Amino acid sequence: MSVTAPEGFRAAGVAAGLKSTGAPDVALVVNDGPSSSAAAVFTSNRCKANPVLWSEQAIRTGSARAIVLNSGGANCYTGPEGFATTHRTAETAAELLGVAPIDVQVASTGLIGLLNDRDALLAGVRSAVAVLDTDGGPDAAAAIMTTDTRPKQAVHEGAGYTIGGMAKGAGMLAPSLATMLVVLTTDAVLTPEQCDQVLRHATARSFDRLDSDGCQSTNDTVLLMASGASGTEPCVDELAEQLAGLCRDLALQLLSDAEGADHDIAIDVVNAATEADALEVGRAVSRSALFKTAIFGRDANWGRILASVGTTAAAFDPADLDVAINGVWVCRNSGPGESRDLVDLEPRAVTVTIDLKAGPEKATIWTNDLTQAYVHENSAYSS
Amino acid sequence: MSVTAPEGFRAAGVAAGLKSTGAPDVALVVNDGPSSSAAAVFTSNRCKANPVLWSEQAIRTGSARAIVLNSGGANCYTGPEGFATTHRTAETAAELLGVAPIDVQVASTGLIGLLNDRDALLAGVRSAVAVLDTDGGPDAAAAIMTTDTRPKQAVHEGAGYTIGGMAKGAGMLAPSLATMLVVLTTDAVLTPEQCDQVLRHATARSFDRLDSDGCQSTNDTVLLMASGASGTEPCVDELAEQLAGLCRDLALQLLSDAEGADHDIAIDVVNAATEADALEVGRAVSRSALFKTAIFGRDANWGRILASVGTTAAAFDPADLDVAINGVWVCRNSGPGESRDLVDLEPRAVTVTIDLKAGPEKATIWTNDLTQAYVHENSAYSS
Repeated sequence: MSVTAPEGFRAAGVAAGLKSTGAPDVALVVNDGPSSSAAAVFTSNRCKANPVLWSEQAIRTGSARAIVLNSGGANCYTGPEGFATTHRTAETAAELLGVAPIDVQVASTGLIGLLNDRDALLAGVRSAVAVLDTDGGPDAAAAIMTTDTRPKQAVHEGAGYTIGGMAKGAGMLAPSLATMLVVLTTDAVLTPEQCDQVLRHATARSFDRLDSDGCQSTNDTVLLMASGASGTEPCVDELAEQLAGLCRDLALQLLSDAEGADHDIAIDVVNAATEADALEVGRAVSRSALFKTAIFGRDANWGRILASVGTTAAAFDPADLDVAINGVWVCRNSGPGESRDLVDLEPRAVTVTIDLKAGPEKATIWTNDLTQAYVHENSAYSS
Repeated sequence: MSVTAPEGFRAAGVAAGLKSTGAPDVALVVNDGPSSSAAAVFTSNRCKANPVLWSEQAIRTGSARAIVLNSGGANCYTGPEGFATTHRTAETAAELLGVAPIDVQVASTGLIGLLNDRDALLAGVRSAVAVLDTDGGPDAAAAIMTTDTRPKQAVHEGAGYTIGGMAKGAGMLAPSLATMLVVLTTDAVLTPEQCDQVLRHATARSFDRLDSDGCQSTNDTVLLMASGASGTEPCVDELAEQLAGLCRDLALQLLSDAEGADHDIAIDVVNAATEADALEVGRAVSRSALFKTAIFGRDANWGRILASVGTTAAAFDPADLDVAINGVWVCRNSGPGESRDLVDLEPRAVTVTIDLKAGPEKATIWTNDLTQAYVHENSAYSS
């Protein structure tokens, strides 16, 4: 049920012909209220797609009644014509739904640098409105897929309220989000300020800690809409934790479906002086092409991990680092520890533990290995 | 002739059995003076190999009479035993050459986390001393190769003096140097301070602008030794430019031999507000796995270039960037320009030009594409 699990939401997913395959490519999620509180976070890339340029202005009202999402074209680097397409999309949905255009968010994903077929997209919006349904979540989740092999959905139950979410994204997963479109819904009663607070708490602890290939998208959007339909005024801290948990669920679904990946890698950095140090170290390791190719090769090459740790400014003694791979402490005191032959790297899940011995803090970054399939998929993607 | 082209230098390269293949693996370069002025730059990685820990202290004297280099083992993350091996290497060479151990630099390359065979290495040093020759440069250049497919050497003639150089490195080429060992020699008369000045000038404009795979080595060393044997007191600015040119020669030789690469890519960032902006933009693009896989796939995917530019803090208008690939302006004003079909990406050499339209400065970063062969070579390297 995903985004339509909470009360007060309808959704739809339809095929509008933007994808040459004829697969569904236009999704619509509508908040029927009574409240329209909303918040969103967007890519921090300075070169933003047109739907991001529109949505980040529109969300300043703290209100959203609907979001239109399309796959089959990112509408990025498409100039004023592209922005006009985004704006017409919002206007068309607004007119059909009887709301203001400013209350309609727009998100797009697909190839960049190509104009979308505006007429096809607007026809898709009309079709989607016509089939809106309180059970439409799965259809919407399917319509936002690009190279995803499966839809990503999650539902968490809070104390008197429900949170739902859907996500897409299978490449370009990076800190500060990814080409990753995420819609989160709840029927809890929240103000716009509370929406913003819990959304930033949740994304900082989930999507922001996912770094699949170090590339940062131009289209990343995570939208939270609160209908208030449950009538429950929640404990905001508890809802924030619930939402963070749901976002981690979705983030790990994205990770496990990343383009060409053979392993899902959790980099646990422990005993750091600060959480920021732990994050810096985890991100550095997650971006090492040599580390990532080693994991693909089932090679417990801890030296490449230390070499990445050494590029950071985190507090640690370079001569006293410990590293475990899947629980085997292959590096002790920055030298050889247990035999690397003891490490089994056949399973898809890999855990790397880096002990900085510098304090009480910790953090986890999730990434994938770097494979020949990744190279193949990304070198052939636009052809 | 490379490092033995300038007067006052002898060199040797021998097989000591550190490499299982029996290929040459110990090199020695000796400065017979009359001067022993020297300077060196090392990796900025905080997790440094033992030879770097030794050499960066020893070079503080401003003097070096010799450098011992070995392939077949990086002597990195090998603890106190590894440091003792480095120190014994310096002592052994010093004793045989009749100089002080502090005047002997040591550099190592190969796998990390494994202790070198100390006896074999020291026997190699003795063999190398026995065959030192004023024509020994090519032998030394061959003995420092690891996954290099060919030795890298260069000679430049200045006004009354000569500069020679050799280099190794075929992966982990990154800013702040690479697993890259470079020995530079000149018979010009230079003080230690002048050596340091010209070396930093040259490396900042050559090796520091090479970013093959974004990984930073633990063993990078670039050493300059000046014998003074020509008797020429050079114009230091002129010599600095000559040295920078020679280092660019060597850097491009490293690039063209990078592991698994299919294309050599020059990223020219023009009309930047500052040189630092141009460098930041060039480095960001050079680290985009998506850009690098696109070039491998002969895909003039300028959108991935703009997405990387957008991750930087450089001065530019996101809506007004131009990008050319091999001279074809495929992106104008951050939108589609000439057809990407006009770009021929079959040749190995690729030039990407990014016009920031923000000022008069420019810089070039060199990188490679990301290929399936790179993944294969680096996932299988230690097995």
